[in-house]
Amino acid sequence: MLHLLPRAVQRHRTFLATNVVTIFRASTKSFVRRHIGPRESETKAMLDTCGVSSLNELIKNTIPTQILYTKPLDIAEPLTEAELLARIKEIGNMNKQFRSYIGMGYYGCHIPSPILRNVLENPAWYTPYTPYQAEISQGRMEALFNFQSMVTNLTALDVANASMLDEATAAAEAMGICVRQTKKKVFLIDELCHPQTIATVMTRANSLGIKSYIVDLYSKDTNLYTDELAGVLLQCPDTQGSVIDLTALTDKIHKQGGLVVVATDLLASTIIKPVGEMNVDVAVGSSQRFGVPMGYGGPHAGFLAAKRKLVRNLPGRLIGVSRDTEGKPVYRLTLQAREQHIKRDKATSNICTAQALLANVASFYAVYHGPQGMKDIAADVHHKTTELASTIQGAGMNIKNKYFFDTLLVECNPSERKGILTRARLRNINLRVYPGDEYLGVSLDETVSQKDLSDLKWVFTGAHNIIPDVTGIRNLHDSKLARTTPILQFPVFRDYHSETSFMRYVRKLEILDYGLCNSMIPLGSCTMKLNAATEMIPITFPEFANIHPFVPFSQAVGYQQILNELENDLINMTGYDKISFQSNSGSQGEYAGLLAIRRYLESIGETQRTVCLVPSSAHGTNPASSKLAGLETVYISSTDVGSIDLDDMKRKVDTYSDRLAVAMFTYPSTNGVFDESITDMCDIIHNSGGQVYIDGANMNAQVGLARPGDYGGDVSHFNLHKTFCIPHGGGGPGMGPIGVKKHLIPYLPTHPVIETDVDTTRSLGTVSAAPFGSSLILLITWAYIRMMGPNGLKQASLIAILNSNYMRRRLEEHFKILFHGTHGFTAHEVLLDIRSLHIKSGIDATDIAKRLQDYGFHAPTMHWPVHDNLMIEPTESENKKQLDRYCDALIQIKKEINEVVNKEYPLDDNVLKNSPHSIPRLMASEWTHPYTREKAAFPLPWVTQEKFWPNCSRVDDVHGDRNLILTHQDLIKADSQTK
Amino acid sequence: MLHLLPRAVQRHRTFLATNVVTIFRASTKSFVRRHIGPRESETKAMLDTCGVSSLNELIKNTIPTQILYTKPLDIAEPLTEAELLARIKEIGNMNKQFRSYIGMGYYGCHIPSPILRNVLENPAWYTPYTPYQAEISQGRMEALFNFQSMVTNLTALDVANASMLDEATAAAEAMGICVRQTKKKVFLIDELCHPQTIATVMTRANSLGIKSYIVDLYSKDTNLYTDELAGVLLQCPDTQGSVIDLTALTDKIHKQGGLVVVATDLLASTIIKPVGEMNVDVAVGSSQRFGVPMGYGGPHAGFLAAKRKLVRNLPGRLIGVSRDTEGKPVYRLTLQAREQHIKRDKATSNICTAQALLANVASFYAVYHGPQGMKDIAADVHHKTTELASTIQGAGMNIKNKYFFDTLLVECNPSERKGILTRARLRNINLRVYPGDEYLGVSLDETVSQKDLSDLKWVFTGAHNIIPDVTGIRNLHDSKLARTTPILQFPVFRDYHSETSFMRYVRKLEILDYGLCNSMIPLGSCTMKLNAATEMIPITFPEFANIHPFVPFSQAVGYQQILNELENDLINMTGYDKISFQSNSGSQGEYAGLLAIRRYLESIGETQRTVCLVPSSAHGTNPASSKLAGLETVYISSTDVGSIDLDDMKRKVDTYSDRLAVAMFTYPSTNGVFDESITDMCDIIHNSGGQVYIDGANMNAQVGLARPGDYGGDVSHFNLHKTFCIPHGGGGPGMGPIGVKKHLIPYLPTHPVIETDVDTTRSLGTVSAAPFGSSLILLITWAYIRMMGPNGLKQASLIAILNSNYMRRRLEEHFKILFHGTHGFTAHEVLLDIRSLHIKSGIDATDIAKRLQDYGFHAPTMHWPVHDNLMIEPTESENKKQLDRYCDALIQIKKEINEVVNKEYPLDDNVLKNSPHSIPRLMASEWTHPYTREKAAFPLPWVTQEKFWPNCSRVDDVHGDRNLILTHQDLIKADSQTK
Repeated sequence: MLHLLPRAVQRHRTFLATNVVTIFRASTKSFVRRHIGPRESETKAMLDTCGVSSLNELIKNTIPTQILYTKPLDIAEPLTEAELLARIKEIGNMNKQFRSYIGMGYYGCHIPSPILRNVLENPAWYTPYTPYQAEISQGRMEALFNFQSMVTNLTALDVANASMLDEATAAAEAMGICVRQTKKKVFLIDELCHPQTIATVMTRANSLGIKSYIVDLYSKDTNLYTDELAGVLLQCPDTQGSVIDLTALTDKIHKQGGLVVVATDLLASTIIKPVGEMNVDVAVGSSQRFGVPMGYGGPHAGFLAAKRKLVRNLPGRLIGVSRDTEGKPVYRLTLQAREQHIKRDKATSNICTAQALLANVASFYAVYHGPQGMKDIAADVHHKTTELASTIQGAGMNIKNKYFFDTLLVECNPSERKGILTRARLRNINLRVYPGDEYLGVSLDETVSQKDLSDLKWVFTGAHNIIPDVTGIRNLHDSKLARTTPILQFPVFRDYHSETSFMRYVRKLEILDYGLCNSMIPLGSCTMKLNAATEMIPITFPEFANIHPFVPFSQAVGYQQILNELENDLINMTGYDKISFQSNSGSQGEYAGLLAIRRYLESIGETQRTVCLVPSSAHGTNPASSKLAGLETVYISSTDVGSIDLDDMKRKVDTYSDRLAVAMFTYPSTNGVFDESITDMCDIIHNSGGQVYIDGANMNAQVGLARPGDYGGDVSHFNLHKTFCIPHGGGGPGMGPIGVKKHLIPYLPTHPVIETDVDTTRSLGTVSAAPFGSSLILLITWAYIRMMGPNGLKQASLIAILNSNYMRRRLEEHFKILFHGTHGFTAHEVLLDIRSLHIKSGIDATDIAKRLQDYGFHAPTMHWPVHDNLMIEPTESENKKQLDRYCDALIQIKKEINEVVNKEYPLDDNVLKNSPHSIPRLMASEWTHPYTREKAAFPLPWVTQEKFWPNCSRVDDVHGDRNLILTHQDLIKADSQTK
Repeated sequence: MLHLLPRAVQRHRTFLATNVVTIFRASTKSFVRRHIGPRESETKAMLDTCGVSSLNELIKNTIPTQILYTKPLDIAEPLTEAELLARIKEIGNMNKQFRSYIGMGYYGCHIPSPILRNVLENPAWYTPYTPYQAEISQGRMEALFNFQSMVTNLTALDVANASMLDEATAAAEAMGICVRQTKKKVFLIDELCHPQTIATVMTRANSLGIKSYIVDLYSKDTNLYTDELAGVLLQCPDTQGSVIDLTALTDKIHKQGGLVVVATDLLASTIIKPVGEMNVDVAVGSSQRFGVPMGYGGPHAGFLAAKRKLVRNLPGRLIGVSRDTEGKPVYRLTLQAREQHIKRDKATSNICTAQALLANVASFYAVYHGPQGMKDIAADVHHKTTELASTIQGAGMNIKNKYFFDTLLVECNPSERKGILTRARLRNINLRVYPGDEYLGVSLDETVSQKDLSDLKWVFTGAHNIIPDVTGIRNLHDSKLARTTPILQFPVFRDYHSETSFMRYVRKLEILDYGLCNSMIPLGSCTMKLNAATEMIPITFPEFANIHPFVPFSQAVGYQQILNELENDLINMTGYDKISFQSNSGSQGEYAGLLAIRRYLESIGETQRTVCLVPSSAHGTNPASSKLAGLETVYISSTDVGSIDLDDMKRKVDTYSDRLAVAMFTYPSTNGVFDESITDMCDIIHNSGGQVYIDGANMNAQVGLARPGDYGGDVSHFNLHKTFCIPHGGGGPGMGPIGVKKHLIPYLPTHPVIETDVDTTRSLGTVSAAPFGSSLILLITWAYIRMMGPNGLKQASLIAILNSNYMRRRLEEHFKILFHGTHGFTAHEVLLDIRSLHIKSGIDATDIAKRLQDYGFHAPTMHWPVHDNLMIEPTESENKKQLDRYCDALIQIKKEINEVVNKEYPLDDNVLKNSPHSIPRLMASEWTHPYTREKAAFPLPWVTQEKFWPNCSRVDDVHGDRNLILTHQDLIKADSQTK
C-alpha cells in the first residue's frame, strides 16, 4: 500500500474538492472577524456612503501616494485564537519559574482570587478610559481615591497621586518637585538607593541640567551644597535592606534648604515607622507587592506622596471629591490644569497614562486584607526574615543590617558564597548577587512558605540543623523603628473582609463605570479598540507573571522570544532599524526618543542644537517631553485646513537653523489628516541638520499602509495601548516602545542591572525601572499581531479609516467638519467644530459631550486639538450599527440645539445644559423643567434598551479644585469642619 | 556549628516569642474569615440579640442533645487559599491530558475566550439563582431562551426546555413523555445508542415498571409490541458513528402507535438532515461540545426537544415570553404548574436544578459563531474525519459506516488493532476500544488540528505516506442526508460576531440579573452561600477540564484523588459508610437513594415493601422521586408547630406496616426546626422494617454538629450547591451524591463503561451518563472543605443558625414567625407567616416578595412549605449589616402594609401591589399614584446607594401560560399574527 497510485490520489483530491472543501471557509475561524467590527455587507454600504467603490479607492483618496507602502507586511500568517493560546503556553514554558528572592523593588505576592477574577481579568475594569467623564466613572475613581488614601496613610504624608509609572520614574518626578519648589539645581542621591532608581534619576537630571551626585548621605563628610541644594533622595529600607531612622538626617537637609525624597516600601510601612513620621517631604515607591505580579518588570503602580504644601507641584493624576449640580459628593479628576494637555509646556510633567488598573488592584488588596491583615502579612515576612537571619548567623556568616524588614545583606567568604550560589541553583532559587565576592542579598515576601524558608536556610548554610544565633539581630517591633500609629482606619479598609462583602463592593463600583464592554469610546487621538479576551488571557499565566525582571536571560527565554518577535514585527511595520522596549508609556517613549537624538547630536559635535519644533496642534505631551529632554520648544502654526503652515515652518527652521535639534510631527496629524507635504517637511528638517521625531500616536491609521521610518522619521514611539490593543485600564497601563533609524541605535536606553546590547558609554541612560518596561503586557500586543497576521493588520487600518470617513459623511450635513485631506477625506478621526454653533446657540462642546451620556454614550475628545471641538475616532472595532447610533445621537442633539436656537427651550433650562440626567433627578417628584422626563432620559427609541445610566448629575469642577479633598483623611476632616 | 547549643536554642525561642510571633495571628490569612460573613464583634452583638451568651448556648437551645455530634471532625487542617491553589495544581498534574477521540457523547472543544472569561468565570453569571423572580432575571432568561431556540432550530422540532442534566437522563425523561402521552408501557431501545444512555434508561424503566428491551430496531424481525408500544429510542448519528435516515422507521413506529425519541448531536445537525425533519417526536442529547469542557463527565447541558403537542408533558424548566403590567414583553419561567413543587406527586418529573450555566455557555457559543461559523466547524470536523477514513481505508482496513459525521467504526484484524493501540499510547491518544478484537472507534472534534490529524493517521496506519482510498466513502453533503434547511436565522445568532459586539451583548444581559455578587439571596431551603473565587479557579484548569469521562483510571489519578478525599470527608461529616458521586443533582440523588433501598429490600425478599412515607411539609421533589423510584407515596401530616405529627406517622406505619419501604425525612425540617423526636421517628420506621431516607437538603445546618448516619438515616443525598458552595449558575449545575449505610453499599450505582467497585448484578443500575456525575465541580466542594478545615466547617453551621435566629428575633415583633424548636429557636431558616396579615390587609406574600425588589433585594422562598409564607435562609456568608438591611426592609414593608390597612392608600394602588417599580415607570411624565415616586423607588435612605433596579414591572404569569412563546421562531410567528 505504499506504492504511488496516481489514480487514487486524483480521485481523493476530486473527492475532497467536491465533498467538503468547497463549503469550508476558514474565515469564520479567523480572529480578524472578531477584531474588526463591520461585516462585509456593512463595509460595502459604508463605502457607498463615502462615495468610493472600494477600500483601495478610499485609501488612494486619503493617503499620499508617495508614502503608500505597497508591499505586504513581512509578518507571520495569522494563528487562530486556539493556536495562539497553545503557542503562548509553549513560549511561557521556555521561561523558568525560579523562586526569586532578589528584591530590589520586585517581590512575589499572592493576588487574592476575587481581585484576580473580578478586577484584573474583568473587562469592566480593564476596558474603561481615563475618567475624564466623571459622571460615568465614579467606580474606578473611588478605587483610586482609596489608593491615594492608602498611600498617604501608610507613608504618613498628606497627599498622593493616583499612581506613577514605577518607583524609578516616581523618584525622577520627585526630583522635579524639589527643583520646582526650591528653584535650586543640586540633587543628591544616596548610594544605597536601588541602582535602577539611581540610573533613572541621573538620566533625568542630566537631561534637565540638574547637578546630581551619588553620595553617602549618612557620612558627615558629604558636601551638601549649601544654597544650591534642591533636595536629596534616600531609600528606607535601603537597597541592602537596612532600616534607619531618617529624622536627624532629614532635619539636617531641611536646614540646608533642601527637600527630602525617600523611596520606601508600603508593606514595611505597615509595621515600621513610616517615612512621613521622619518628617520627609516626598515618598515614592512601588505598590507592586500589593497583589500585582512581577511580570518581568511591570506594569505595576508606582506611587508618590508628599506634604500638602507640594500638592500643586505633584505630577500625574489626582482624584478629588467635588459635588454634582445637586450637591451630591462625587469624585473627579482634580487640578487638571497642572497637566500638559492644558498647561502645555508649563506642565509639571509629561505623564499622561499612569497605572490606574494596577493601582486599583493594589488598593483593593488593602481593602481586602484590611489593617490587621496587612500588618500580619508584614509581620509574617519579617518573622521569617528574622528566622533566616539568625540561622545564617548560626552558620557563622554575618548579617550586615542592624535593623531590617524583609531583606538581608549577608557577608560571606568566597567559598561560602560559591556554595550558596550552587545550592541556590540546585533549588531553583534566585538571590541578589552583589558585585565582588563578599556579599549576597536575600529578600523575603508573603509567598515564602515554611518549605521555602527551610530551602533558603539550606541554601545559605548547606545544612538542616543549624542552631540559630540571634546575636545582634534587633527586635524591630520593640525598637523605636516600630510603627506606633494605626494604619488604614477608614471604613472602606474595614468593612469588606468577607469575600461576599468584598465581591459586592467590587461589583458595586464596577457597574458605575462605562467601559468598552458597555459601548464605544471614540476618543479622538486616545481611542480604544477591542481588547480581546484571548489577548488578555496569557498575562495571568504564572509562566509569565512570576518572573522577576532581574533574572538571568536563561530564565526568561520565553520573554526574550516575545521581545524578539515583537521587535521584528514592529520594525517591519514602521520601517525603523531597531526597537527599544524600555519606555513604559507613550510619554516616556517621547522622552527617550528625544534623548537619543540629543546624545546623537552631541556625538557629532552639534551640542548647540537644542531647539525642538512642535506644531501648535500637537498633543501637549510633545512640548512637555521636549522640556523634560532639556530642549527648547518652538511652535509652528497650522493653516486653516489643519495642515502645518509650511511657510511658518520654513521661517522657524531658518531662524533656528544652527540650533535646530528636532521637529516633532504627529502623522497622520492630530487634526485627522494625512498631510501631503510630510516628506517635504521631513526633508526640510533633515536638510537643516535636524532630526525628525514622528509621534506614533496615530500609527493605528497606517499599519500596513505607510511607515514613518520610510517617509522621514528618525525616531518614533508607539502607543501600544492604542494601536496594539493593550487595554486602557481606566487610565493605564500603557507601553511606549520607540523605533529608531540606524544612526540612533547606539544611544538607546540601557539598564544598570541587566545588560543590553547597547554600549552604556554612549547610551542615553535609563528611562524606566525595568529593562524592558512593562514586559508582561507586551504579550497582549504580540498576541494581537500574531492573530491578525499581515492582511488582518492592514485591514484594521483600512477599516479604521473607513469608519472615520463614514461618520464624517453622516455628520457633515449637521455639523461643521473642521479638517480634511486634499481629496476631502479624513484619516482615522474626524473633528466636529462647535464654535460657530456655540456662538449661535450658547451650547458648547462640553454640553454636547455631557448630553451624549443621556444617550448612553461616552463623549469624544473635547476641546482638543481645537477648543470647542469634538474629535471622534471610532476605530475599526466598531460596527456600522454602533456608528449609526452614535451619529443618530449626535444628529438628534443637533436638533435639540436647534430647539434652543429657536427659543423652544430657554438657554439655561434645556436638555443640553442640564445633562446628564441621573436617575434620582429624573424620578424626583418635583419636575420644573420645560421639557419632559422622557425627552431627557430616552431621546431616541433604542436608548430605552441600551442605556448606560450616569451615576450623578454634572460635576462641578471649580468647587473640586477650590476644596481639595484627596483622601479619606481629608474627607473626615472636611466632614468634621462642616459639623 | 552542628553541636547542640541549648542556650542558643533557648535564646532563639525567647527571641522569636517576644519579637514577632506574638503579633502574628494566622487568622487573617485563613479562608474561614472570607467565607463567613459576621466579624467577631458582630457575632457577639447578634448573640446578645438572640439572648444567649455563646454559640454553644445557642446550639444547646437548637439541636437536640441526643443527636449532637461532640467530636471534632476528622478532616485535614485548613489550607490557605494560596496553598489550596498550589495543591490543586499538584493534583491536576496527576491527571494525564491525552487527546481523547473516544466520542460517546463527549468531545474536545474550544471555549471561546470571551465566553470563558465573561460567562463561565464571571460571578455575575454563576452566582444567580433559578430565575423565579423574573423582573431581576431577564438576562439569563434571554440566554436560556436563545438555548431553547437553538435546540429547536438545530433539531427541527417545535419546543425545547432550558436544559437537562445530561443526554442519558434526558432520554429517560423522554421515555416518560412517551409513556404519559400514549399511556402504554413498552419502550424499545435500539442497541446502537450509547451504552450509558441505554443503562440509564433501562434503570429508569425498571423502577417505573416500564417494559423495556434493547433491540435492533432496524431489523425487520424485531417485535414492535403492537398495542403496547409507548415509544422507541434511537440514536443518530448512532454510537458507532453511522448516519441513517430514520424517516421510514419513524413512520413504521408511528403506525404501531409509538412515539420516536432520537438521541442526536447538535453539531452534526448543522450540516446533516435534522431528526425533526425525519418526523421524530422527541430529540435528546448533549450540548457539551458547544464550548463546555469535558470535565471528566460534566457538568454539561443536556437537551430535550419535542413536537409542540408534547409541550405540557415536557420535564424541566421552560422559558417563555409574557408581558409585564405595562405590556412590555418579558421573559419568565412558564408552565411552572407542571413542576413538582406545585404539582407534587403529579409532576411530570422530579427535576429541579438543570444546567442553566452550561446551557448559557452553549447558547452563547452559537451566538458567537453564528450560522455560518457553526456550519464551518461542523464541515471542518467532517472533512477531517473523511480524510482520516480514506487514509485508514488506504491502509487496507474497513470503515464500517456507510455515512458518518465525525465518528468512524474501523474494522481491523487483531494484529492491526494491537499496533494501533500501541501507537495511540505512544502519542498520548485515546480511541474508543470496542469489546472483542475486531473494532476500534474514533471521533473527531473541532480541536483536531492538522498535526492531530496527521498523528491519527499515523496511529491508524503506522506510516506517513498512505495513499488514501475513498472507495465507498459517501459524499455526505451531496447526499439526501445533507441538511437543506437554513440554521439559526434569528438576529441574535447573526448580530454579535465581532468580539466587541459579542462582549457587549453578554454584558448587557449580565447587568439585568441579580446574583450573589449584588446582594443576598436568602431562599429558604434553596439558599446560596459564598462561591469563593478560589474554589472556582480550578474548574477551568486544563488538567481537569480536558479529561474525557471514559479514560482509564491511570489518566485520571488526580480526579480519583479528589473523589477519595471527598468521600472520606463526606463520610466523616455525615456518619455514612460509603458515598456514590454518580447522581448529578439532588433530585437524582433522591432517586438513586430510593432505588438502592428498593434493591436492598428485594435482596432480603421484601419485594412487597413499596410504600414511601413523606411528610406533607416535604419538598415536592420527595414525592416526585418516590414516584420515579416506583414507590407509592403516603403523606404524614404536620403538627401546628411544624413538627411531623408523630401520631399520624404511627398510624400510617401501622396501616402500611408490611408494605412500608421507606420514610423520607428532611432534617432539620423544611419548617426550619430540629425536631426533638427525630431519633424516635427513625426507630419507629426501622422497627417496622422500613428504611430511613434523610433528605440532606439542610445538611448546611448540621455539618460538624449532627450526622444523619448517626441519628437514624440509612441513606441521604447532599446538595453540594447549597451546603458545599457549588454556585447555582442561575439554575444549575448541581451535584447530589448520596451517602449510605453499610447494608446498602452493594446496591449503589454502577456504570456500563467504567468499572466501579460495586457488583453490577446487585447494583441499582445507572442514574447518570457519567460514572462520577459532574466530576468537574466536585473540585469546588473539595476546595471549600480543604480551606475551611474541621473547625471552619463547624463554624459555618453555627453561624448559619445564628444568622437565622438573629433575623427571627429582629422580625418577630413585626411578623408572625411560624415555627420554632422546643426552646424557641429556629434552625437555619425562618418562616414568616403572611396569612393573617393577608386577610387583614389584602397584601400577600407575593406582594411582599416583589416589593423587596424595590429595596434592592431578592425575595425569600415564597408560598413554601406553607402557602402565603416567606421562608428566609440567610446562610453564614451574610454579615450583620446585610441581615440588618434585609430586616429593615421587611420592617418598613410591614409599615407600608399597615398604611394599606389604615386606608392611607387604597388596596389596588399602593407601593406593594404596584411593585416592583421599574425605571421607565418611575420617570414617566404621567404619575397617577397616590404615593410619591420617591416612596416607590427609595423607601429607605441606604436604598439610594445600593439599589439593584428591576428591569421591568411585575410579570403577568397567566398571560405567559396562555400564550406559549418558547423560541425566537414562536416570537416571529406571534409578531406576524399580531400584524
